[in-house]
Amino acid sequence: MRVLVLNGPNLNLLGTRKPEIYGTTTLADIEGMMRERAVELGIEMDFMQTNYEGELVEAIQKAKGKYQYLLLNAAAYTHTSVAIRDAIEAVELPAVEIHLSNIHAREEFRHHSLIAPVCVGQICGFGAKSYLLALQYVAEMEK
Amino acid sequence: MRVLVLNGPNLNLLGTRKPEIYGTTTLADIEGMMRERAVELGIEMDFMQTNYEGELVEAIQKAKGKYQYLLLNAAAYTHTSVAIRDAIEAVELPAVEIHLSNIHAREEFRHHSLIAPVCVGQICGFGAKSYLLALQYVAEMEK
Amino acid sequence: MRVLVLNGPNLNLLGTRKPEIYGTTTLADIEGMMRERAVELGIEMDFMQTNYEGELVEAIQKAKGKYQYLLLNAAAYTHTSVAIRDAIEAVELPAVEIHLSNIHAREEFRHHSLIAPVCVGQICGFGAKSYLLALQYVAEMEK
Amino acid sequence: MRVLVLNGPNLNLLGTRKPEIYGTTTLADIEGMMRERAVELGIEMDFMQTNYEGELVEAIQKAKGKYQYLLLNAAAYTHTSVAIRDAIEAVELPAVEIHLSNIHAREEFRHHSLIAPVCVGQICGFGAKSYLLALQYVAEMEK
Amino acid sequence: MRVLVLNGPNLNLLGTRKPEIYGTTTLADIEGMMRERAVELGIEMDFMQTNYEGELVEAIQKAKGKYQYLLLNAAAYTHTSVAIRDAIEAVELPAVEIHLSNIHAREEFRHHSLIAPVCVGQICGFGAKSYLLALQYVAEMEK
Amino acid sequence: MRVLVLNGPNLNLLGTRKPEIYGTTTLADIEGMMRERAVELGIEMDFMQTNYEGELVEAIQKAKGKYQYLLLNAAAYTHTSVAIRDAIEAVELPAVEIHLSNIHAREEFRHHSLIAPVCVGQICGFGAKSYLLALQYVAEMEK
Amino acid sequence: MRVLVLNGPNLNLLGTRKPEIYGTTTLADIEGMMRERAVELGIEMDFMQTNYEGELVEAIQKAKGKYQYLLLNAAAYTHTSVAIRDAIEAVELPAVEIHLSNIHAREEFRHHSLIAPVCVGQICGFGAKSYLLALQYVAEMEK
Amino acid sequence: MRVLVLNGPNLNLLGTRKPEIYGTTTLADIEGMMRERAVELGIEMDFMQTNYEGELVEAIQKAKGKYQYLLLNAAAYTHTSVAIRDAIEAVELPAVEIHLSNIHAREEFRHHSLIAPVCVGQICGFGAKSYLLALQYVAEMEK
Amino acid sequence: MRVLVLNGPNLNLLGTRKPEIYGTTTLADIEGMMRERAVELGIEMDFMQTNYEGELVEAIQKAKGKYQYLLLNAAAYTHTSVAIRDAIEAVELPAVEIHLSNIHAREEFRHHSLIAPVCVGQICGFGAKSYLLALQYVAEMEK
Amino acid sequence: MRVLVLNGPNLNLLGTRKPEIYGTTTLADIEGMMRERAVELGIEMDFMQTNYEGELVEAIQKAKGKYQYLLLNAAAYTHTSVAIRDAIEAVELPAVEIHLSNIHAREEFRHHSLIAPVCVGQICGFGAKSYLLALQYVAEMEK
Amino acid sequence: MRVLVLNGPNLNLLGTRKPEIYGTTTLADIEGMMRERAVELGIEMDFMQTNYEGELVEAIQKAKGKYQYLLLNAAAYTHTSVAIRDAIEAVELPAVEIHLSNIHAREEFRHHSLIAPVCVGQICGFGAKSYLLALQYVAEMEK
Amino acid sequence: MRVLVLNGPNLNLLGTRKPEIYGTTTLADIEGMMRERAVELGIEMDFMQTNYEGELVEAIQKAKGKYQYLLLNAAAYTHTSVAIRDAIEAVELPAVEIHLSNIHAREEFRHHSLIAPVCVGQICGFGAKSYLLALQYVAEMEK
Repeated sequence: MRVLVLNGPNLNLLGTRKPEIYGTTTLADIEGMMRERAVELGIEMDFMQTNYEGELVEAIQKAKGKYQYLLLNAAAYTHTSVAIRDAIEAVELPAVEIHLSNIHAREEFRHHSLIAPVCVGQICGFGAKSYLLALQYVAEMEK
Repeated sequence: MRVLVLNGPNLNLLGTRKPEIYGTTTLADIEGMMRERAVELGIEMDFMQTNYEGELVEAIQKAKGKYQYLLLNAAAYTHTSVAIRDAIEAVELPAVEIHLSNIHAREEFRHHSLIAPVCVGQICGFGAKSYLLALQYVAEMEK
Repeated sequence: MRVLVLNGPNLNLLGTRKPEIYGTTTLADIEGMMRERAVELGIEMDFMQTNYEGELVEAIQKAKGKYQYLLLNAAAYTHTSVAIRDAIEAVELPAVEIHLSNIHAREEFRHHSLIAPVCVGQICGFGAKSYLLALQYVAEMEK
Repeated sequence: MRVLVLNGPNLNLLGTRKPEIYGTTTLADIEGMMRERAVELGIEMDFMQTNYEGELVEAIQKAKGKYQYLLLNAAAYTHTSVAIRDAIEAVELPAVEIHLSNIHAREEFRHHSLIAPVCVGQICGFGAKSYLLALQYVAEMEK
Repeated sequence: MRVLVLNGPNLNLLGTRKPEIYGTTTLADIEGMMRERAVELGIEMDFMQTNYEGELVEAIQKAKGKYQYLLLNAAAYTHTSVAIRDAIEAVELPAVEIHLSNIHAREEFRHHSLIAPVCVGQICGFGAKSYLLALQYVAEMEK
Repeated sequence: MRVLVLNGPNLNLLGTRKPEIYGTTTLADIEGMMRERAVELGIEMDFMQTNYEGELVEAIQKAKGKYQYLLLNAAAYTHTSVAIRDAIEAVELPAVEIHLSNIHAREEFRHHSLIAPVCVGQICGFGAKSYLLALQYVAEMEK
Repeated sequence: MRVLVLNGPNLNLLGTRKPEIYGTTTLADIEGMMRERAVELGIEMDFMQTNYEGELVEAIQKAKGKYQYLLLNAAAYTHTSVAIRDAIEAVELPAVEIHLSNIHAREEFRHHSLIAPVCVGQICGFGAKSYLLALQYVAEMEK
Repeated sequence: MRVLVLNGPNLNLLGTRKPEIYGTTTLADIEGMMRERAVELGIEMDFMQTNYEGELVEAIQKAKGKYQYLLLNAAAYTHTSVAIRDAIEAVELPAVEIHLSNIHAREEFRHHSLIAPVCVGQICGFGAKSYLLALQYVAEMEK
Repeated sequence: MRVLVLNGPNLNLLGTRKPEIYGTTTLADIEGMMRERAVELGIEMDFMQTNYEGELVEAIQKAKGKYQYLLLNAAAYTHTSVAIRDAIEAVELPAVEIHLSNIHAREEFRHHSLIAPVCVGQICGFGAKSYLLALQYVAEMEK
Repeated sequence: MRVLVLNGPNLNLLGTRKPEIYGTTTLADIEGMMRERAVELGIEMDFMQTNYEGELVEAIQKAKGKYQYLLLNAAAYTHTSVAIRDAIEAVELPAVEIHLSNIHAREEFRHHSLIAPVCVGQICGFGAKSYLLALQYVAEMEK
Repeated sequence: MRVLVLNGPNLNLLGTRKPEIYGTTTLADIEGMMRERAVELGIEMDFMQTNYEGELVEAIQKAKGKYQYLLLNAAAYTHTSVAIRDAIEAVELPAVEIHLSNIHAREEFRHHSLIAPVCVGQICGFGAKSYLLALQYVAEMEK
Repeated sequence: MRVLVLNGPNLNLLGTRKPEIYGTTTLADIEGMMRERAVELGIEMDFMQTNYEGELVEAIQKAKGKYQYLLLNAAAYTHTSVAIRDAIEAVELPAVEIHLSNIHAREEFRHHSLIAPVCVGQICGFGAKSYLLALQYVAEMEK
């Protein structure tokens, strides 16, 4: 069983940006925690970050046949990208929507996710732990 | 460490209702799975269900000082109850919002949660596993 | 064949309240008329009123297996209760939505019914006769 | 006592159109059922159908002095015709709004009726039985 | 100089309908007052009423080349007819929009006129005198 | 019989401003035409212009007992002044709303008049002739 | 003269909740202050709190004939309860709407009160003093 | 194979109206071009125009069993007619929505088509060529 | 302790205007009642009325350092003046918003107050007594 | 004469994605059909697909001077890209908007096209044939 | 070359009001800085402030023929005054809209400027430097 | 002191596109003017343009530590990119939003800037001079 963890724009700045919302953990720290947990749970995992909408679209497209789950923090594109939504819908892989912050408690325009309706579910607000819970979901499904 | 699991209106019908959305698992099944997992994770847990908004408000009020976390599936009241929101805000306990179905993929009026802005985060769409992930979150926080 | 007639908040004041909208007929008068007509039509009928949303939810839940039809005047909860809607949807009994007044001719916020989409149909505006027409519907179905 | 039953656009196709919503009953079948019931109830009844908004307006205008009730299924014009609304308001005859389907459970634009506020009440969702209930209402009023 | 006075749906009921809004003057009375005034002002005038949107469209189309002005009370179609708007725009005759009542002081849906933007101007609220003022406008233009 | 003609902000610039909308006629020209016509019609008339909302309010207040009609072109304040609306409503004099241009054919925010609902009626779009038609209305009323 | 003071959901937590908005005064403190003041003003007073919408509805219903005034802080139900609105309207007792905080200065969804239109007036923003002003109003009325 | 080409209100004025939007081609010219092309493509074609909504409804109704395709330029009724939508849906013939102008580049109220959701597709903005492309579509389908 | 009582547009007409909403009490009567009560409560009070938005702005600006409270009935400007809001915010004096009528029970556009969010609180609906309650509030604060 | 055919995000998945909406035809199939038809029609054609908004923008920019027509299926970017709109507007080449599915019959957010107002016209709903019709349009223009 | 600098309501309080938004600089300080800079740039400058909308309207009207540019900080009237907009449009002088704070980063109702569409451009958010940049713009234009 | 000047999509076409809005100045011309001015003001400046949202995001990210100011004309992405907004917020460099045209005077969808709330301020409408004013702002800050 393999999962692909996808990270959208500005997540490469994690740990330097708005610590009161995202904390001081970096994306490398999150990758580290996930790899450690993945080993424990017997999950193979790839992890990437990009600031390009088109690159996210293509990563999702290529995931088909290679991964069984998508764990996706689309960041800013969550609220503006129909292209990512269409890609998820097209590959028909179960996708878990992840957010570090509770998007429902922030600015109005972050309350609405264009990709939520094509994902299995949403985990948001738990900081880096949102990612671990997504991994846990995969593990639960494969028990 | 103690957590209170709260369930709102009609969740007592679980397993009999709309199986294409909620599956055939009953609320008793969920309680059973959670108790088993809670033991594994070293968490004490109470579990209740009510169809009354006022009773949910009072259960939240009384949780203060007795529990360290609220795990709450407010069901229909998620979308209509300011009273439950105010209760959560008042007791200042970390609350995790749980939904069996992906509320963002259902009718428009279910996309908006009145309680989300006062919770730590939201886990929705993973069926009974949404509850287990909420427990897992508690366990992660206490590591 | 058995039907359950459910009445929501403030309908117990009927006959004392806003007679230009609801007339001077009391809820007991309506119950009386219905019982008389039910006998004529060969229908068994139970009749209740409550001011609690939660109690309506539970009455609907318990109707399953005991009644073949719900005749429901949810009054104020018509416009605010997702919980009642979910209960009706869950029990999968045919429900008839009843209103004494023509809700479409009153304040804007009364034009929209949250429960209408899960009912068979709506009868409104005919005063106490709205209830009798609902009974008549049941009789027509059973012919 | 005489009633006029008015049917709007496309109702002449009844029985051929969208049977999952309207059933296989034709408009002639409905007319037949109504005539039979009208005889039982001692009501004289005229019945017409037109696809023209202007013709509905004129039929309503001419009803004054000749009929005591209008039973009206305006179909598509329900949602778009101020002219029919004005005609009903002008003739000051009690009008009953009828729909075969539950308009509140269909597309958003069918939820709002421009004519409802000038009718006595609305009966919708009961298929051909909606018409019989309207007749029943007339009979109740004349008891 | 010739003008065409066009009257829309239900204006044939004038004098019988809602006298508190429209008064007891009939459409024939208005035609009479206008003819008398037209003679004084040296204007030739035709006058018609119809309840059909399509007939109004065609009357406007045929006005081209035969009349120099349209005086139009489209009544209910004011608020719903793009077809009448397109007809006025197409014939490129100066049109005066007339209303007996002050449409801006009535129900919300009557505040907006679809035809206003393609007319020279609007005269509303002065009862039968709205028509006379429209005639007066024509006279002023031809001085 | 006396009428007060009130002109709001920027109307003193008439003839210098946006001639494609208002023409080259000045406000003095309009006053001149009106005075001439008023004499013909046997109407006494006062005429004023101000750029201050408060001054318009006070002019309306003082009109009571001194004038029988208000002829009011509130210009920009038409769309923003509740104070002028309240003043008109308070003095209970019949007021005629005048606009040079067809406000319904201009920018969206000019379509809605806050004062229209408290006036007898509206005359707009006829340039300086809008004022003459308002005078004509007064003359018609006094016949 | 007797007044009933009604308090809605979560007001029992007063003094423990969000002190920057509500201060440290408890509901018992408010009851104490009111009783003291009521004695000074010669007013008999009953005081209750409930977290149940249905219980508020019934308390209002039973107030008829026993109290001359309702002083009501419906808290969260202010914004969501048509049932409480209907109850106030039905009993036809003068009701004063009270809020500790200035609801117009808080979250958008708290700006709108469903019960305001059926109350005599609203007093909000003065903390516990809002209650005393409501009592003062009763005293002024009875002078 | 037979197709019915339907034209709505004011299209009979084509060539005389707003040439900057519709060009100088008349409806007879379009019919001519189409007939010529139809012959080339081996399609039998009927062609009509009406200004009446009801007549369009009936033409669509009667098309069933006689034609295999509807090519429909509903003009102004595109934006206001639920009746035409219902007729298309009822006859279950494939319909192609045609517009001479690009409706998405004109006034806001022309951007939305009530009939689009029940048509196969939409061709707009190509002037008379929109009609030829619709014919071409039919030819492609029948290859 | 000194308070400034400010009255906005048209309040000088009080007692002559819409007595069913405002009663027959004049503004001078209110001033009289207030002066009497102020003496009892040991409060110094100034009282003014103006129809000019700019004059209200300046009166508020000048209040700083001279008064400890503003009691403000901004009347129509309540709903339209950002300038008054900014003035109150700038002087940082506690301001009490007063209305004679219950603004929440009147026309939709009167429900929203632009100045409410920068005031301590709102007292509305109690007629002249609204002013006395505002004075009472000041007295309570100074106890 | 040369045309550039541009395809946006996820169209490279065609044939694998949602066959009930798009069919099993691949993008290569469409390119093949178009090339064949282009030869018949004497049109030179280039064809490209990209998942990057920026790449579409640049392809449009570079088309100037090299192609006479743009045939553009912007897919998801249709609804979100102002940049593509600006590019089309800037190069001033006639562009034809193409969609495989009928966007007006799908989710609400797909009804609105940001690029439609700067295109000549729109062809949608005819599957792969939408592309052929676009080519046909070019051929018609060049006749 | 002469410019008129116009300042709207409450700007006379600058330096005393909300220093976290506007800083401690007074309006006299800004006038000083501008005069100094104007001398350097060879610009003649007049400077005024008023709290009256009508006075701003008249200052703009009188600027014609005397100044070549308007530099305008309309403060609160930016969001509510159609009269100022009309005045700017009427005098046809190039106007620069100035704001001390970034209005797009404040309350929702401050995001929209009624006067922006009739100005050359907008400079906001740079504190007192917004004024100097406006002067700089004038200097650039006159190079 | 170093500043980075960033230009978004289609600005590379400047001078060829819509000269009535943007003039004939090319982006190279603007760069030239800025370099000349930057030398005068003692500012080091880098200048880039890209049509890719992701590239803008990354350019902003890399600016941290290398530049003291961002001068940003995001063009079309101004209205659609949350990613650019998040990047600016993350790097915490003062950013100046620049537009050649007055975005508030163009199409409705261009009035709203997603990036404005995270910039220091906005300069729009002054053509190429908007860029020079932004440089001037930097110079003023560094005086």
